[in-house]
Amino acid sequence: MRYSKSFVKTLRSAPKDETARGAQYLARAGYVHKELAGVYDYLPLGLKVLDKIKTIIREELDAIGCQEVLMSTLQNPEPWQKTDRWDIKKMDIWFKTQLAAGGELGLAPTHEEPFTNMMKTYISSYKDLPVYTYQIQTKFRNELRAKSGIMRTREFIMKDLYSFSANMEEHDRFYHKAEIAYQKIYDRLGIGNDTYQTFASGGVFAKYSHEFQTLTDVGEDTIYYNQDKSVVLNEEVLNDEVLAELGVKRSELESAKAAEVGNIFTLKTKYSEPLGLEFTNQNGERQTVVMGCYGIGVSRVMGVIAEKYADEHGLVWPEQIAPYQYYLIGIGNAGTQKAEELYNKHQDVILYDDRDLRPGNKFADAELLGIPYRIVLSDKTLAEGKAELTNRATGESKLVTIEELAF
Amino acid sequence: MRYSKSFVKTLRSAPKDETARGAQYLARAGYVHKELAGVYDYLPLGLKVLDKIKTIIREELDAIGCQEVLMSTLQNPEPWQKTDRWDIKKMDIWFKTQLAAGGELGLAPTHEEPFTNMMKTYISSYKDLPVYTYQIQTKFRNELRAKSGIMRTREFIMKDLYSFSANMEEHDRFYHKAEIAYQKIYDRLGIGNDTYQTFASGGVFAKYSHEFQTLTDVGEDTIYYNQDKSVVLNEEVLNDEVLAELGVKRSELESAKAAEVGNIFTLKTKYSEPLGLEFTNQNGERQTVVMGCYGIGVSRVMGVIAEKYADEHGLVWPEQIAPYQYYLIGIGNAGTQKAEELYNKHQDVILYDDRDLRPGNKFADAELLGIPYRIVLSDKTLAEGKAELTNRATGESKLVTIEELAF
Repeated sequence: MRYSKSFVKTLRSAPKDETARGAQYLARAGYVHKELAGVYDYLPLGLKVLDKIKTIIREELDAIGCQEVLMSTLQNPEPWQKTDRWDIKKMDIWFKTQLAAGGELGLAPTHEEPFTNMMKTYISSYKDLPVYTYQIQTKFRNELRAKSGIMRTREFIMKDLYSFSANMEEHDRFYHKAEIAYQKIYDRLGIGNDTYQTFASGGVFAKYSHEFQTLTDVGEDTIYYNQDKSVVLNEEVLNDEVLAELGVKRSELESAKAAEVGNIFTLKTKYSEPLGLEFTNQNGERQTVVMGCYGIGVSRVMGVIAEKYADEHGLVWPEQIAPYQYYLIGIGNAGTQKAEELYNKHQDVILYDDRDLRPGNKFADAELLGIPYRIVLSDKTLAEGKAELTNRATGESKLVTIEELAF
Repeated sequence: MRYSKSFVKTLRSAPKDETARGAQYLARAGYVHKELAGVYDYLPLGLKVLDKIKTIIREELDAIGCQEVLMSTLQNPEPWQKTDRWDIKKMDIWFKTQLAAGGELGLAPTHEEPFTNMMKTYISSYKDLPVYTYQIQTKFRNELRAKSGIMRTREFIMKDLYSFSANMEEHDRFYHKAEIAYQKIYDRLGIGNDTYQTFASGGVFAKYSHEFQTLTDVGEDTIYYNQDKSVVLNEEVLNDEVLAELGVKRSELESAKAAEVGNIFTLKTKYSEPLGLEFTNQNGERQTVVMGCYGIGVSRVMGVIAEKYADEHGLVWPEQIAPYQYYLIGIGNAGTQKAEELYNKHQDVILYDDRDLRPGNKFADAELLGIPYRIVLSDKTLAEGKAELTNRATGESKLVTIEELAF
């Protein structure tokens, strides 16, 4: 991308109510634009980050046999009434709306009901199982308070996967595959080393669920961990009964701030039973389908990563999800000419700052935008036949030949 | 794709209220699943068609310098009040909802207001113009009656592009580029020959707008055309004044049923004026930005194409947007073995019907699904070292060598 062609400019200040550092940078660098509290637009660079996150998630889920669909936002009350989640007292984050033709509709805050309901069309025999299906779709939650930029919003992009199995053994096998796929996803997103799978509360139907929590000072949660025993707990399940069961003492646990970046649930028949999702087993008997659900907040993960790695100068994107790998600056006639050449050869990976600005402003924007590597070409570097390559995360600079830049 | 691995099965019947032929096939073939009237889910094959349409649109818009963003669904009333489009009497297709924290929000049925409003952050000088920005996003319209499957729905996927120019000359230049890009898009979607750019009513601010209308018997519109004069009109502007202006007589016009697949509008300052989107010109004077908007209903186009080309056996997708190019059937041991080989080499373009079904059922599903080419490998074809290749659109079959199949 040629920066001079982008309609987005970096801004001196973020919206006043944006308190988290990463959220301020996302607004100032032009990744997002705030519509109202908890509602954001994604500008071209932000959309690129989202797309890279989506691609990583898709690849890992497709690799374990999941099939992608796209479900609707508008929801018929009926299936939600059957599972007792339509009433705002039971699920208080509904946005509801009126159909002009008559009747109430909801904006889906999650999709267990429509997926379960739809599968009644496609699952009738044990031969139809298992089924693993997911979507990457916009969800709506009527949060009383939205905060931390795109980490907790009223409108957000989520990947939600649902598994449909004949029995608990089949379910458990896939649940374990999903755990591994999730860890691969976080590795590829650049947060694998700091992301832990924690025991979380499982609701009525599963004793525990699991969350994936990424260590970060701006996290809303506190996790308790004992690395020797590989035990990591959410605060909500930190009680004597759970500790005894896991064979760990409270004094052996350390705590850390963390942000949830995913969760997986064993649902058993919580939704399939009230909605009547059954199949005929090998003995000709009717059985209820066993379900699991597996979520990753795509825009939330982008927000968590922005917060986690931000420093005093701006954003720092992991290479895997950065909108571009290189931020290119040419200084002087020779530097600019060489920069043009380099950009024309590698447009896909370079954000070329060809704006009519002083180098100092370009250096500042390079840091604010958090592109992993900055390349500077100037009379000075070219005198040695080289370019200056600076790592955004470490700040280290070195002179390298053009050939050494690994495009 | 291996058909045996797909959770979707073809169905004997479509939902009862689905009257259009293409819509019935889309449901029966498993491209879509109906949630409620005018609200659909897209199943894996349907999502593939949508993605191919999106890619074609993106490539042509990016080629004329447009930048992609993603705007929010939830809408603050304020900018819509300023343009007098918040009141349901002025725009009767709003879905509105209540924020738990207090206040009313709307679900965007279109995005002129938020785009115009956002640009106030990024456009301040003539140097910032022109800007062309678009999104591919889900829109919500509270239609009293939904009909024709995914052609007219309450929730749909739309590409909407907005242009911001310094003056009418600059606007007209881009408007013309957009006209050409649209024609390229329809060519690539496989409906170019039957899609006409028509004069439509332009509202208060532009004398005429243009629609793109595709000839099809299931179209909701009637267009009037005179091919010698290259004049094509919508019914709504068929009056003496317009005919005189265009220099054509009513008796010289023929009529045809057509479906709208896109529209482009010159907005002038209709939205920029009430929302205060101004810039400083080269003389230091403040001027109001001139706008245009350019829409294509992505899911609607998919519906129009489904209806237009459907025949008595099922869907017929143009190659460019078909989910797969080949529907592969192996018959007998040798045929199945050869089919496995072929599939393993070309998985991306083949839907391999490896299900344990009789060939007759597979042939019927191949036609219902509308995949452009069917390949049959059997003892009979292999005796000649060949495969049978059948064109879905023409029904023509011929024996070809494996090498002649152009993958």
